[in-house]
Amino acid sequence: MSDFSGIKALTFDVFGTTVDWCGGIARESRAMLGPRGHSLDWVAFANRWRRDFLPAMDEVRSGRRGYVTMDQLHREMLDPVVAEFGVDLTDAEKDQFALSWRRLDPWPDVLPAMTRLKKHFVLAALSNGNTALVVNMAKRSGLPWDVVLGADFVRTYKPMPVLYDSAPLLLDLKPSEIMMVACHMWDLDAAAKQGLRTAYVRRKDEYGVGAPIQTPAKGAYDLQLESFEELADALEH
Amino acid sequence: MSDFSGIKALTFDVFGTTVDWCGGIARESRAMLGPRGHSLDWVAFANRWRRDFLPAMDEVRSGRRGYVTMDQLHREMLDPVVAEFGVDLTDAEKDQFALSWRRLDPWPDVLPAMTRLKKHFVLAALSNGNTALVVNMAKRSGLPWDVVLGADFVRTYKPMPVLYDSAPLLLDLKPSEIMMVACHMWDLDAAAKQGLRTAYVRRKDEYGVGAPIQTPAKGAYDLQLESFEELADALEH
Repeated sequence: MSDFSGIKALTFDVFGTTVDWCGGIARESRAMLGPRGHSLDWVAFANRWRRDFLPAMDEVRSGRRGYVTMDQLHREMLDPVVAEFGVDLTDAEKDQFALSWRRLDPWPDVLPAMTRLKKHFVLAALSNGNTALVVNMAKRSGLPWDVVLGADFVRTYKPMPVLYDSAPLLLDLKPSEIMMVACHMWDLDAAAKQGLRTAYVRRKDEYGVGAPIQTPAKGAYDLQLESFEELADALEH
Repeated sequence: MSDFSGIKALTFDVFGTTVDWCGGIARESRAMLGPRGHSLDWVAFANRWRRDFLPAMDEVRSGRRGYVTMDQLHREMLDPVVAEFGVDLTDAEKDQFALSWRRLDPWPDVLPAMTRLKKHFVLAALSNGNTALVVNMAKRSGLPWDVVLGADFVRTYKPMPVLYDSAPLLLDLKPSEIMMVACHMWDLDAAAKQGLRTAYVRRKDEYGVGAPIQTPAKGAYDLQLESFEELADALEH
């Protein structure tokens, strides 16, 4: 059993780990497009919108492209999606629709567990989302961040080391006093390389109910959990 | 009567405006030094500690010195103060004592008013304090920041324009959708130059009860108020 008594802050991945982007975008898409007569597979629409997200960020990570925010990437990625699905929207409507990503709900276990965890730890969003995106989302759903470490502070994207290094630097902590919480192995692997502790939280419905996810080997990471409630159980002392 | 209906975010100065640094440092100093037999004018001690703060920041602003955090400045400024007051502390004790600036209380009107304002506006700390300093202080006293814009993100100090510009940039708002709230005219003057709206809140006891403060001319700034409660009254619509 590991000793977690030295942990002072938790850094959370947001999209997938803390909020349900697939369900939220499916809902927002139906609300936007249903009244216009579209009857689509909304989960497929959401997944298609998200599909090219990692390569889009990689353009920035690699330096081939200057920094653009996640809000901007969401807007850009929308163009081919609406074309593929035969949806006709004006540019102004697409601008508005792209902000759907600011209106995602936390998974049901998140708010009760974060309320518990907030008593003991600094709760930081360590997201590829830009500050406005993460702050607006938190405001709408009540996510109780103590601090938002947006990717726009460092102007690149995870898994670049500078993102993870920014947490101990800005919070004035040792890397080992911080635990990264995420549902993606690439995120945790990169955090561990920078000395952060790691907690994997399984989000089996990230891409829709029943859609496959990658899962870590047994024993990987400091913790493997099924929910934020289990995280609170493991860390409360 | 100005129209404030377009305001979406409030950026707050922290030291003096939101928290009572003089009363807090007087209290922390007495708690630290009283048991060692010191009986000092604790308010004078607090003011002396703060005295060289503006010139210390100016070294960084001017570029004569690389960026150092406010936590570090508090530590450095402590050395001459303890020498002057005849206080003997080890370096480790001074390191600890300097973190007193993380343990300041909000003025009595702040928490009730911010709870009201949080329903309508993004509440941002726009402080010369570094993130760890502002976040730890908020954690202890319950200050409900939606986002902390620490000076360590931009690695310089107010009133440099980049600090004020960071608010619309990171919050994805127009400058005119943001109101800077502060008790110092130099802070509001610089914010107004960058296009932010301005609210002056008088903190008549900033330097101790009865100590003089500078006050603005009638009509300066969008609002002049006696408390955060008056700010909430003025902005709720």
